[in-house]
Formats: sequence, C-alpha cells, structure tokens
Amino acid sequence: MEVDPADANLYRTLTSLVVPRPIGWVSTLDPEGVANLAPYSFFNVACVSPPVLQFAPGKRRGRPGRLTDSQRNVETTGEFVVNVVTREFAEAMNETSATLAPGESEFDHAGLARAASSKVAPPRVAGVVAAFECEHRETVDLGSNALVLGDVVHVHVDDRVVTEAGKVDVREVDAVGRLAGSWYDRLDARFRMERPD
Amino acid sequence: MEVDPADANLYRTLTSLVVPRPIGWVSTLDPEGVANLAPYSFFNVACVSPPVLQFAPGKRRGRPGRLTDSQRNVETTGEFVVNVVTREFAEAMNETSATLAPGESEFDHAGLARAASSKVAPPRVAGVVAAFECEHRETVDLGSNALVLGDVVHVHVDDRVVTEAGKVDVREVDAVGRLAGSWYDRLDARFRMERPD
Repeated sequence: MEVDPADANLYRTLTSLVVPRPIGWVSTLDPEGVANLAPYSFFNVACVSPPVLQFAPGKRRGRPGRLTDSQRNVETTGEFVVNVVTREFAEAMNETSATLAPGESEFDHAGLARAASSKVAPPRVAGVVAAFECEHRETVDLGSNALVLGDVVHVHVDDRVVTEAGKVDVREVDAVGRLAGSWYDRLDARFRMERPD
Repeated sequence: MEVDPADANLYRTLTSLVVPRPIGWVSTLDPEGVANLAPYSFFNVACVSPPVLQFAPGKRRGRPGRLTDSQRNVETTGEFVVNVVTREFAEAMNETSATLAPGESEFDHAGLARAASSKVAPPRVAGVVAAFECEHRETVDLGSNALVLGDVVHVHVDDRVVTEAGKVDVREVDAVGRLAGSWYDRLDARFRMERPD
C-alpha cells in the first residue's frame, strides 16, 4: 500500500507502525490545585544531558484553546511529573484517559493515591516504579500536536529495580508499551543483541 | 533511590525507565551519494496532521561538528527515510550500529538491499514492513542530543499488514522494541484494554 499524506489522515498508520511506544503518564496541577493525570504515548527521551523528556499532546475539541488539560496546566504552572506505567498500573492508567467533569481529579476517579514530589508541586502516583519531576522548557507547536519539552529536575526510582551497584536494572522494569487502537504490549519477550564494535 | 540530575549522568536511568522505545532505522545519503543507515530509539511520532516524525541523535566524538552521519546528512541533503524494524531485521539493524570506514555503506556491511524511494533520494531498506519518506523540517538542539523533525511525504506499507479495508493491522506488525544496554523486546505479549468513555 502506498500512502500520500495529502490524501489521508495518518493517525492509524503512524500509531500502528511506530510501535511499541513508551507511555508517559503525566501528572499536573490546574491553577485551582486539582491534580490531572493522563497518559501520552507520543513520548520519549529528547536529550540526555541536560536530561529532557517530551510528550506530544493533540488538540482537543471543546477545550480552551483546544489544548489538553495536561498541556494547559504545564504551560500555566511550568511543572509536570512523568510517571512510569508498569503492568500493575495498566488498568488504572487506562481509566485516567476518561473524560471527567471539570474539577474532578483522575487520581480520585482511578482510585490512585498521590505521593508528594520533591522539587515540583504536581504529585506523583504513589507506588509507581519511577517518576520524573520536570520543569517546562519549551513547547514546539506543529499542528494537530505540540511537543512539550521538560527539563528533568529530580528522579524517584523504586529500589526494587535498582541493582546493588545503584543502577536501574531494565529486566526488572515491567513497563507497558502502547500499540494502536485498544492494543498494548507487556515486556515478556526480552532478548539480547550485543552492539558490534 | 533519589537521583538529582546535577549529580549524575542520566543515560542509564532514562534508557532503562522510558521503555519500550520504538526504533527508527534512518537511511540518508551523504553528499557523495553513499547510503547511511543507523538505528535511533529516541524516536517517535511528533505530530499527526501534518504528519511529523522525529529522532534525537546524540553528539559523537570524532565526527565533524560532533554530529552523527545521519544528522549531518539530513541537514545537508534535507531528506531521510525511517524504516520500521521487525524481528526478521533485528540482527541486521544491530549490525548497522557498527562504526564503519568513511565511504562504506551500512547497507553493504549488513547485507541489506536498497529499494528506491518515491519522493526522496535516500533508499529504503528492501523488504521492511513499512518506510516513511521524510523531508527535514527543523532541528532543535538541546545539548547532548538534538531533535531532528521531518515531514512525512510518502509512506510505503507492505500489504501483509494491511486489512481488506485498507487499514494497518497492528497485530501483524512484529516490531522490535528497544530497552537498555543490550536488551530488546518482541511484541509477543499483546493485550487489550478498551478506552473508557
């Protein structure tokens, strides 16, 4: 099949072929202090030094400026937290993509406890394997989506995935990968390839 | 474990916790016409409409301007192709991360055939499940890495992953996910969750 982007919306094509995607479960605070929590899979590391994470929220009908609550909160308050989604949190993560009434928090809707962050105001999700506290760096508007970039200012990592040498052991991180439609993937088929010289 | 980015390089922490990452296998041409091919896992969809893909190459010692060949070629020629890596191409993809002599092509080193692209000059990898032809949009330099953004101008999709209705079936896309160190993941543990209203 040959696809000319001028003729078609590529959402299904992009989300089905750029896989598996990591999930950034983004917590923010609105100006009234209500904690928002939403998953984004157009998400990745943008830079190692300085450490920068990014996610790319889409425009939404019915929202002020068509911005998602996450993006609006980041740009208003300057802060967000990226929580890592492992399999035990998969269903709760999915629940936080529901559309809620104004003033209702996804934390409460999904039955999740808040944990205090160290350097930013938005709470972490209590019990997640890791959380990255971020300060808004810049937004690059591209059209239907914008790149929201944040400088990582603190990282919490659960000791259960940390080796005695103080390094994260990726084999212990049971993250959930995003595919397309209603499909996700678990990391149950890890394999090794040594990098050539 | 609590990590202050001021005290530590976060490469291992970021690559072990932002997982699984999709792999963009980027083909470019240098000014002499030698085809370069290299994998990047700081890679994702940046925007759906217009369709934009991005990858975030790091700086490398011993390269002009410390840029990877991929980034330098994209910025010199304005074009690149993102090839999708499925399990049958995993070992070849890994081979293309080797450091080669100037003028040697990773296509030849890894025994890969070139397929002509439709709208850009860099070749695709023959036989991949999908390839996105891209024109350079902009580069956002962040420090150790830069975001290289490209507008998707044409997409090739193998009919073996396309439904009768002309849609990509994500269940047929046996992509390889990137973890950390020498670890990768296959999509052998797919599961469904319906999005709430």
